[in-house]
Amino acid sequence: MSAIDETHDPARTSWVTSANGHPDFPVQNLPFGVFSPPGGGPRAGAAIGDAILDLAATAPLLPKAAVQAAAGDTLNAWMALPSDERGALRRRLSDLLSDPAHEAAVRPALHVAEDCRMHLPATIGDYTDFYVGIHHATNVGRQFRPDNPLLPNYKYVPIGYHGRASSVRPSGEAVVRPNGQRKAPDADAPTFGPSRRLDYELEVGVWVGPGNALGQPSPIDRAAGHVAGFCLLNDWSARDLQAWEYQPLGPFLAKNFHTTISPWVVTAEALAPFRRAQPARPPGDPAPLPYLLGEEDQAHGALAIELEVQIRSAAMRERGIAPMSLSRGPATNMYWTVAQIVTHHASNGCNLRPGDLIGTGTISAPKPGGYGSLLEIGEGGRSPVTLPTGETRAFVEDGDEILLSATARAEGYVSIGFGPCRATIAPAP
Amino acid sequence: MSAIDETHDPARTSWVTSANGHPDFPVQNLPFGVFSPPGGGPRAGAAIGDAILDLAATAPLLPKAAVQAAAGDTLNAWMALPSDERGALRRRLSDLLSDPAHEAAVRPALHVAEDCRMHLPATIGDYTDFYVGIHHATNVGRQFRPDNPLLPNYKYVPIGYHGRASSVRPSGEAVVRPNGQRKAPDADAPTFGPSRRLDYELEVGVWVGPGNALGQPSPIDRAAGHVAGFCLLNDWSARDLQAWEYQPLGPFLAKNFHTTISPWVVTAEALAPFRRAQPARPPGDPAPLPYLLGEEDQAHGALAIELEVQIRSAAMRERGIAPMSLSRGPATNMYWTVAQIVTHHASNGCNLRPGDLIGTGTISAPKPGGYGSLLEIGEGGRSPVTLPTGETRAFVEDGDEILLSATARAEGYVSIGFGPCRATIAPAP
Repeated sequence: MSAIDETHDPARTSWVTSANGHPDFPVQNLPFGVFSPPGGGPRAGAAIGDAILDLAATAPLLPKAAVQAAAGDTLNAWMALPSDERGALRRRLSDLLSDPAHEAAVRPALHVAEDCRMHLPATIGDYTDFYVGIHHATNVGRQFRPDNPLLPNYKYVPIGYHGRASSVRPSGEAVVRPNGQRKAPDADAPTFGPSRRLDYELEVGVWVGPGNALGQPSPIDRAAGHVAGFCLLNDWSARDLQAWEYQPLGPFLAKNFHTTISPWVVTAEALAPFRRAQPARPPGDPAPLPYLLGEEDQAHGALAIELEVQIRSAAMRERGIAPMSLSRGPATNMYWTVAQIVTHHASNGCNLRPGDLIGTGTISAPKPGGYGSLLEIGEGGRSPVTLPTGETRAFVEDGDEILLSATARAEGYVSIGFGPCRATIAPAP
Repeated sequence: MSAIDETHDPARTSWVTSANGHPDFPVQNLPFGVFSPPGGGPRAGAAIGDAILDLAATAPLLPKAAVQAAAGDTLNAWMALPSDERGALRRRLSDLLSDPAHEAAVRPALHVAEDCRMHLPATIGDYTDFYVGIHHATNVGRQFRPDNPLLPNYKYVPIGYHGRASSVRPSGEAVVRPNGQRKAPDADAPTFGPSRRLDYELEVGVWVGPGNALGQPSPIDRAAGHVAGFCLLNDWSARDLQAWEYQPLGPFLAKNFHTTISPWVVTAEALAPFRRAQPARPPGDPAPLPYLLGEEDQAHGALAIELEVQIRSAAMRERGIAPMSLSRGPATNMYWTVAQIVTHHASNGCNLRPGDLIGTGTISAPKPGGYGSLLEIGEGGRSPVTLPTGETRAFVEDGDEILLSATARAEGYVSIGFGPCRATIAPAP
């Protein structure tokens, strides 16, 4: 687990003045990403306030091996570094950006963030999506099985499935409503056309760092070493396609048409002060099997991150109405920790590679204010949400924008954020 | 659909004499792959008899654009070429290898195949596995639901799910038996340990050629243009892990520990003479929805390929006993064509990319001699197979080698094969 050090000092400020008090990117965060400045190609950078630092342009001032790994147009090689090398690069950036003595040398490497275009931070080898939000699993399960919402394997197995790597896109790219087969319960046969029950899912994304070789599992005590950082992830879901297609092999076209992520990699090192003990399991729940039980992980495996979802319809935008909050809740509502997810994933010898992306699954709270999908909030379409314009939403409509955001908070530390994860729905072709 | 031309002429022979009468690689085949010759690095080649032609070493004699696309250490760029450009390269190779006038110039670029090491032919972006072997779906479904083996969606939806790209390996690499959670029906809780019900699955693999953009489906009339070629695929499956983990999101650790493929890409162009009409659906089955119905595909969408599975235990190898056949059957036992699979996959806007790998799902016959997995042959463990040594197999044991093979046959044409797809089981860690 990464240590708390001087980079987390709440008294530390930056000569990039927009960073001081910045909700997402104070000098205590320094997330990594891939951006294109105006007129330039993709390159690695670090976010600081309203600016982005071009790493290659600062290379002479940075640790050689680490900045070389971040020299290309993806961060896969940087993710593959051991945590101490990634940490050394981050510590050096923190010094450069906080000590005014470095301003003259570093300032030329800064770009105005809003003038830049963000890309995916890595070439994603495999994208896996889990299902560790127990309240989501319960809320959704209850719609199908009121007396027995959770399946018998849930409290033993961190349930997951493989998603589509090709259709993961950074925040800001429009999501095209999918066509597909859907069958009404009382219909004789399915029809093909635009999804009528398009939904979002609020998730945290995990970027895999150093991997494991095929056939060689990794024990839970080493799981933290396989995690490079985190992002927000919207697992767009066509509920009507999913209901018809998912048996017996799971979700497919209902999910693989688009996945939106926030483009900044909030590092495991930056999140060190926001580690918490994994909440105790409710009385009667089984203990995790031994391969999923780590002392250090139980003590520090949860993350004190507050998540929020907002919606803004086309009519709200036209009338200048701000986005409306749909839910807020803590990431501690995960039944399994990130270390348990990673350990389980590799427990059969499956090889993880630097740049793999893992979604936690929808993180919901036990009560409506914290539900992580419209399927839950609207009770499967029965209780639509009313927007400030008077419009109602059982599911997401064309022109709607969905915005995910997150803030890590801890007493005595400066809060850090993830930056936006947003996308607007375009009509089906 | 690729045309039949002079490269398929049964009278054509090669000056590489081992090709004439070769069961897999006569001059009528010319599959592409990536190989390392002794002391050399990975490069593109074409199989001809017992030899491999180094494409880069023959470059001055080949069409420039096509050979440039095949110049790296993967075939992704070659797969991305339109069919006519891939076909022009193959036609030129056929001429060079059949006309003795070219022998002096070409022979130096040949390597002895058995001295070379084969690699994966492409960097696999995404690996998707389908379930279009209706007899397999029925045979397995019957074990769980005797009166209603097929789920209601089966005859409308080409069922598929995403698999793991990182663990796909070429023929010959050992498969490490996975550990995992498994729960006996009468047990209170699962335990963790080596899979006790390890199985193979006989599948055909499809290599995606030119892709489609995200959000832009591709109609069935253009589906053939998205297919570069074919291979054999063994979808190793841990049945006990699968039974416990698969609800509600489908197979995960039961499948993603290893997938073995034959390393040669048998091109869509080489298979032109082996196209057949898709067999008529049984009376009472629904017609495919319009987006899955193509006139050309119905007329020529099936493949006349005979598939076989063999087993050889460690004791059989020690005693010099040849592999024993477990099953034989035709690839026409697919309920959906490759074009229907590809069209469905992209129907929601999901983007396919050159080098993506698609498995058909286990291809079984209605009767035991053609079952494509031990789960079917051994009736879920109740009727083990007896080997020539007297050993019995309900599932695959450590040291067993499983060999898949395939031959495309058509009256009036020279048969072509896929080369071996084999792997031996190593003990769990």
